[in-house]
Amino acid sequence: MAQSSKTNRRIVLAERPRGEPDETTLRMEEAPVPEASAGEMLIRTEFLSLDPYMRGRMNDAKSYADPVGIGEVMTGQVVAEVVSSKLDGFAAGDRVLASSGWQDWAVSDGREVLNLGPAPERPSWALGILGMPGFTAHAGLYGIGAPRAGETLVVGAATGPVGATVGQIGKIEGCRVVGVAGGPEKCAHAVETLGFDACIDHRAEDLQAQLAAACPDGVDIYWENVGGRVLYGVLPLLNPFARIPVCGVAGWYNLERLPDGPDQGPQIMGTILRMKVKMQGFIIFDNFGPEEYARFRSDMEKWLAEGRVRYTEQMVEGLEAAPAALNDVLTGRNFGKVVVKVG
Amino acid sequence: MAQSSKTNRRIVLAERPRGEPDETTLRMEEAPVPEASAGEMLIRTEFLSLDPYMRGRMNDAKSYADPVGIGEVMTGQVVAEVVSSKLDGFAAGDRVLASSGWQDWAVSDGREVLNLGPAPERPSWALGILGMPGFTAHAGLYGIGAPRAGETLVVGAATGPVGATVGQIGKIEGCRVVGVAGGPEKCAHAVETLGFDACIDHRAEDLQAQLAAACPDGVDIYWENVGGRVLYGVLPLLNPFARIPVCGVAGWYNLERLPDGPDQGPQIMGTILRMKVKMQGFIIFDNFGPEEYARFRSDMEKWLAEGRVRYTEQMVEGLEAAPAALNDVLTGRNFGKVVVKVG
Repeated sequence: MAQSSKTNRRIVLAERPRGEPDETTLRMEEAPVPEASAGEMLIRTEFLSLDPYMRGRMNDAKSYADPVGIGEVMTGQVVAEVVSSKLDGFAAGDRVLASSGWQDWAVSDGREVLNLGPAPERPSWALGILGMPGFTAHAGLYGIGAPRAGETLVVGAATGPVGATVGQIGKIEGCRVVGVAGGPEKCAHAVETLGFDACIDHRAEDLQAQLAAACPDGVDIYWENVGGRVLYGVLPLLNPFARIPVCGVAGWYNLERLPDGPDQGPQIMGTILRMKVKMQGFIIFDNFGPEEYARFRSDMEKWLAEGRVRYTEQMVEGLEAAPAALNDVLTGRNFGKVVVKVG
Repeated sequence: MAQSSKTNRRIVLAERPRGEPDETTLRMEEAPVPEASAGEMLIRTEFLSLDPYMRGRMNDAKSYADPVGIGEVMTGQVVAEVVSSKLDGFAAGDRVLASSGWQDWAVSDGREVLNLGPAPERPSWALGILGMPGFTAHAGLYGIGAPRAGETLVVGAATGPVGATVGQIGKIEGCRVVGVAGGPEKCAHAVETLGFDACIDHRAEDLQAQLAAACPDGVDIYWENVGGRVLYGVLPLLNPFARIPVCGVAGWYNLERLPDGPDQGPQIMGTILRMKVKMQGFIIFDNFGPEEYARFRSDMEKWLAEGRVRYTEQMVEGLEAAPAALNDVLTGRNFGKVVVKVG
């Protein structure tokens, strides 16, 4: 069923998943298309972004953002077209970046909505390299990672939209960049297209030995996207004063309970102590503001124009395909930034 | 056997311990008293400091400092008397702060030796509240913990020389200070003498519940001295943007292998991510320099004079008592700063 001007398809959280979300987790509903009152606009979703953080919002746990309620529309950033507007600053035909979630239609009062203008060149990029994932990579790497030429940077989820950007910025700054990704195809992409110095398949039995071989001078920055074996493989390689921006632990998002032992806590904490490591978690819009955003936009537009940063987008057709595509993102079956073409 | 001018008793590392050091770990030897050449001085140990970090130096592991070699004198800070000097700036009768280790006599070229003058008021305090432990507490709390009035600070090993100082500085800065210590006597001392708001026995079955009750507004700073159950009890209480200076993980120093599971890694890393926690390991003389040291000395001398900081020292008699006393420090059987009166 395609997008229609008569009904609003929306995907709501039906029940909280245990482990990997399945067909009982999300439910598609139909509702009337809402109407815009004075001071509001009606927007129609064109592209929906899928991101690992969405798994966390399905849990009823203390976190940086409120969980999605049962029966509520799943949260998510979209690029939408303004269909009608009773709001200054937004006109029919404008494209906007909004957080209206997994649905065809929404009404907005314009708060926290960015107007991309009537004809943005690549509107969906506002969900990726020129949006939240790109800003996350840029601000987190400069603000916490503090890369210096000659240092070694290890990046988990190396071909994901954040990891790929982190690694390419690392190369621009003169670092040795070692990616970790799932499978030979992604690893080849990281080295051949993104320009990483090496990329290791995280499924390798001898992951730790391969990491050690790829990082002969140790590791100065570990960009944490995934947790698990990659983290545990990097810990023994950290140099004094290493930095670890903690951007995600995607390998652990579907955990139902803590994994079997041994307890790696002493290894984590002991390494932080002995190596004087700085580890810092961050949520992009909580930790960084307009100043960092301006620097990101300026750098990234320049690098894209110069071809120094490459961007891979995987387009998924249809809102109904979003739940399965999110599971692909969570388990690494995607390639690059996943965007759903909704309408 | 007491200190003698004829022989140099010295305690050397006989073999690397597995788990808690025992009677085979250290060995007392006798050697001739060394002689000072031109540009050197002969010093006689009066006080030897015992500190948790010494356990780490017994291991042959990658760390911030080289391990003590088998057959080498155990490392340690001392206050010593200059007996004879062929070195400018040091005269017979001066007291010095040196790193000459677990022995009666040593020759020094004066490098990294601090002259305390001929008549310091309380010479042994240079090993504690006015020395490395005090500086560790002050620089780590201000430099990483960044306390603000009204915040909640949790301190492990609350009556140890670092923890007691951290907590008292926290009170001076207007924090709610909750200590964790071993046993009711130490907890009473933390509250009644040191002025903490609460102190919890880490052996309590319901440690987590007691921590939660003592921290109704969550935890903004966790001073990590111990690891283990205290860390795992604090993690769920951390507030957004919490800071964790990692000063030690004394509860884990005697581990021979990683403990049984579950693996708490996902809990540690997930909390850092969701709560945007900054965790930073530090080694006092690697992370902080003369500027922080000057500020520490100025603050601490003022606070001691005003009675706003209290200091507890436990004096142990005789070099031969040092090995057992170090085990007491490592297992929390000490009370306050442990200093060995050598001669």
